[in-house]
Amino acid sequence: MALPDPTLIALLHGPDQPGLVARVAGWVFERGGNILHADQHRDMEAGVFFQRVEWLSQSYGYTPDEVAAEFARFAASLGMHARVVSSAHRTRMAVFVSKADHCFHDLILRWKAGDLSANIVAVVSNHTDLAATTAAYGLPFHHVPLTPATKATAEARQLEILRAAGVEFVVLARYMQVLSADFLHAFAGPVINIHHSFLPAFAGGRPYHQAHARGVKLIGATAHYATADLDEGPIIHQGVERVTHRQDVDDLVRLGRDLERVVLAQAVRWHLAGRVLAYGNKTVVFD
Amino acid sequence: MALPDPTLIALLHGPDQPGLVARVAGWVFERGGNILHADQHRDMEAGVFFQRVEWLSQSYGYTPDEVAAEFARFAASLGMHARVVSSAHRTRMAVFVSKADHCFHDLILRWKAGDLSANIVAVVSNHTDLAATTAAYGLPFHHVPLTPATKATAEARQLEILRAAGVEFVVLARYMQVLSADFLHAFAGPVINIHHSFLPAFAGGRPYHQAHARGVKLIGATAHYATADLDEGPIIHQGVERVTHRQDVDDLVRLGRDLERVVLAQAVRWHLAGRVLAYGNKTVVFD
Amino acid sequence: MALPDPTLIALLHGPDQPGLVARVAGWVFERGGNILHADQHRDMEAGVFFQRVEWLSQSYGYTPDEVAAEFARFAASLGMHARVVSSAHRTRMAVFVSKADHCFHDLILRWKAGDLSANIVAVVSNHTDLAATTAAYGLPFHHVPLTPATKATAEARQLEILRAAGVEFVVLARYMQVLSADFLHAFAGPVINIHHSFLPAFAGGRPYHQAHARGVKLIGATAHYATADLDEGPIIHQGVERVTHRQDVDDLVRLGRDLERVVLAQAVRWHLAGRVLAYGNKTVVFD
Amino acid sequence: MALPDPTLIALLHGPDQPGLVARVAGWVFERGGNILHADQHRDMEAGVFFQRVEWLSQSYGYTPDEVAAEFARFAASLGMHARVVSSAHRTRMAVFVSKADHCFHDLILRWKAGDLSANIVAVVSNHTDLAATTAAYGLPFHHVPLTPATKATAEARQLEILRAAGVEFVVLARYMQVLSADFLHAFAGPVINIHHSFLPAFAGGRPYHQAHARGVKLIGATAHYATADLDEGPIIHQGVERVTHRQDVDDLVRLGRDLERVVLAQAVRWHLAGRVLAYGNKTVVFD
Repeated sequence: MALPDPTLIALLHGPDQPGLVARVAGWVFERGGNILHADQHRDMEAGVFFQRVEWLSQSYGYTPDEVAAEFARFAASLGMHARVVSSAHRTRMAVFVSKADHCFHDLILRWKAGDLSANIVAVVSNHTDLAATTAAYGLPFHHVPLTPATKATAEARQLEILRAAGVEFVVLARYMQVLSADFLHAFAGPVINIHHSFLPAFAGGRPYHQAHARGVKLIGATAHYATADLDEGPIIHQGVERVTHRQDVDDLVRLGRDLERVVLAQAVRWHLAGRVLAYGNKTVVFD
Repeated sequence: MALPDPTLIALLHGPDQPGLVARVAGWVFERGGNILHADQHRDMEAGVFFQRVEWLSQSYGYTPDEVAAEFARFAASLGMHARVVSSAHRTRMAVFVSKADHCFHDLILRWKAGDLSANIVAVVSNHTDLAATTAAYGLPFHHVPLTPATKATAEARQLEILRAAGVEFVVLARYMQVLSADFLHAFAGPVINIHHSFLPAFAGGRPYHQAHARGVKLIGATAHYATADLDEGPIIHQGVERVTHRQDVDDLVRLGRDLERVVLAQAVRWHLAGRVLAYGNKTVVFD
Repeated sequence: MALPDPTLIALLHGPDQPGLVARVAGWVFERGGNILHADQHRDMEAGVFFQRVEWLSQSYGYTPDEVAAEFARFAASLGMHARVVSSAHRTRMAVFVSKADHCFHDLILRWKAGDLSANIVAVVSNHTDLAATTAAYGLPFHHVPLTPATKATAEARQLEILRAAGVEFVVLARYMQVLSADFLHAFAGPVINIHHSFLPAFAGGRPYHQAHARGVKLIGATAHYATADLDEGPIIHQGVERVTHRQDVDDLVRLGRDLERVVLAQAVRWHLAGRVLAYGNKTVVFD
Repeated sequence: MALPDPTLIALLHGPDQPGLVARVAGWVFERGGNILHADQHRDMEAGVFFQRVEWLSQSYGYTPDEVAAEFARFAASLGMHARVVSSAHRTRMAVFVSKADHCFHDLILRWKAGDLSANIVAVVSNHTDLAATTAAYGLPFHHVPLTPATKATAEARQLEILRAAGVEFVVLARYMQVLSADFLHAFAGPVINIHHSFLPAFAGGRPYHQAHARGVKLIGATAHYATADLDEGPIIHQGVERVTHRQDVDDLVRLGRDLERVVLAQAVRWHLAGRVLAYGNKTVVFD
């Protein structure tokens, strides 16, 4: 995985037509690039073509931004939407938390271990429980208290923080508030949330209580892009763990913490590596 | 697992109170029995005690039926409901099928391999697709066609078949009809169904289509006792399998067949071994 | 999965060099083909490039065999080895069995359900236990008894059967004999075996006994290509199942049957779909 | 799980004989105790009986230590070995680390979250990398450098630290040194190690390199009691994760970290809850 040189990664999708793979490969080749990975997917039913191409771009006489812009134009000429990022780019990422700290610690520790190609530039919380720990990690902590009555003001404050820090990507690490459609629209960047159930089962509040009441034999966690429809956003990753009648709700909560950490971290890692393409209420994950 | 001598298995439950484990163990011991397994569970919230006790009974001067009756009286004196079966008893079991044959073959082959302590005494279907295969297995096949208009008559015919064959237990091996509350009440024995989703997600019809439309990353199967509330019966066992955007509905159906077979077989095996105790809409599985 | 038109599938590998993806894609495009899937892998350490390309070939004025030959020449000009098959080709497959029937039934039933793009043309066994069942499935059964003393003669007889039936691919479905290096050399086609442990743990005989003696908490099964080095061939697929101290060896054997069936079937399905490329003692599985 | 009153937990094993379950239950009952859990296991082959009994002891007029001693005498009268602990007892635990910090952080964070019924009283390392982090957690850090030449001296120093801190239980959280038989004998308490492979596959050094070289499709982690025979101690828990040809050794190392954390934490939690009984080179885990 440790490539010596930065690569360019393009995610593209659009109406399927013959020759797309060859034309994209040819475009890269003609510009002296060497394709390292080229995964594609066809949604036969919808007639949509999806591709992730990653190529070595060191021999270009252009900046990554110039190549990205040129590639986007090329893709548009094929009727495709494209997003191009350099593997050298470190996404500016904010983590939203409330009181629960397991996903928070997990993300920070993975980041410190070099597993996430991102810069965590802000921690935002509606509580102060994690202020000291955040400081101990050397990260800026922003306390934005929030009540139903002050939600609009609080979200405006959050957006201000995100803009000031140049945040491109938000992770909701067990942040126990729903982001409004207005907030998501204004932020305009990707937001990943972890829901503590195997969606669509047990959407909404207190999913472990719901799971216990129904007597299921597996509990789950779901990482998805946040959308205006709560718990309905495109699913990126899910995990489950076996449970028995012996586990009470507290046990489910405790077991679920391991699930939530691993599932959220995997989704964030895939997203940062340019491996997730959302369309409609689904995702294509080029793993 | 292959015990030389038959054992007695008691499943009991009732209001929790101090000393239950000791009193049950004492009762068995005083009658010369030797407890091989004694698992119990307490639902702390509901204050209910559940126990499965299995003991060697060869030294009794009584028949298993006499011991069972005596144990039931003893349990009642403690305010408990009890069911006692001998490990030597081979449950008379019927398999209901429609057209899909994967769970059907799977159950029959396991039974032939000696994995199920049951006698399969009837195969019932609303179609004739599996008539010849059933005959090749040397089993009686009963064709009971069924339309919405003839449902009551058909179910009466099914009940007649079950009674004539002395059926104690019914397995719905992808039988694509809903059993009415009247049928379940009249049959009065346990019925296990396999639903091809991770319930409560995707209850109802065409669950793989629902799963594909939602874009989940895991598909599941659920074995549960059939109740008058469709897909709401006590869950015995569940399994899941990872899927990606690459799988279309046909792939999910194919992958799901492996899940359904394994999950249904495990639930049936546990049930036949006296390991499942249903209460409310949940189960205690002493595995 | 159900494509209306046959596709061509090329598996190629050789020394890595810039532009391979583009040149292969270009070759297909220039001949009017439309690439549906193009997965590749680079072994960075060894400097080897692997690719699986699948394309719609209906618009060619050539037969699949002509295209395959031409592609092989093209690949050779790039220093690559290539194997091209048409999705319309149904591999002629033999199943070797001994007494255990679970993998046998499983493969046959999947094949009858249309899950395997193969024609099963021979069942070969060193015992007669499965003769009647094979006949009931309408398949030719060949009994080739085998003792250490008669191994060479028996293998010659097996090769004769395989040649007479035009067998291209052999599956050892719990066939309890080791194929000699001479046999494998003479057959010259792929042979997939299922070993009932998580290799390299518990190679050799009686793996469930070994697993029980060691007290492991997971048992496994491994599907691999058979090579002259017993249990050392390239691994295609592995699965595991959790066990506890409660399971004795007989239980492990029973649980293992489910594992073996699913793991072997998956490996066979991948192989038949042209998704497995073996090199050295490893495989690349384009799943 | 959060019981209001402390319970007593007895782990006992010895030669099987009729009536053991009843006699243990009777003993508890006669002393006013109420059995909450009583799991037992029989190793039919070896003729050994194992039991874990947990009972509410609040009504005794004795201290937990007195009851424990009395129970041990009772067990001895049945020819059984017994260990009795109070759920109120918080085991004094030391964590040994080297440079890798993932298991270290994981254990400390779980402990801070209240998931481990222990007091972490010492962190011991042959390196200083984790000194500052340990201090930040408010825990005492002991640096004991170690070379082959100084091993005996270093281990003597480690034993001194453990004695001074009253350590009852040691966890090797990716501590990259082998403890000598002398050390284990002198410490005389349980030591749990995490090995980064699915033992017995890939025992010894650099297991991820071994796994990559063999081309396995699953990697694993194994938590076991440390014994004088390296990597041969009784296995408590194992986990696996699926990998493909795409993962290089660095990826295996990264993926393995999640496995190691979860598997080690589960083993430690079970041990601390009095759920693990080691005998010979195996364990009985009453989960």
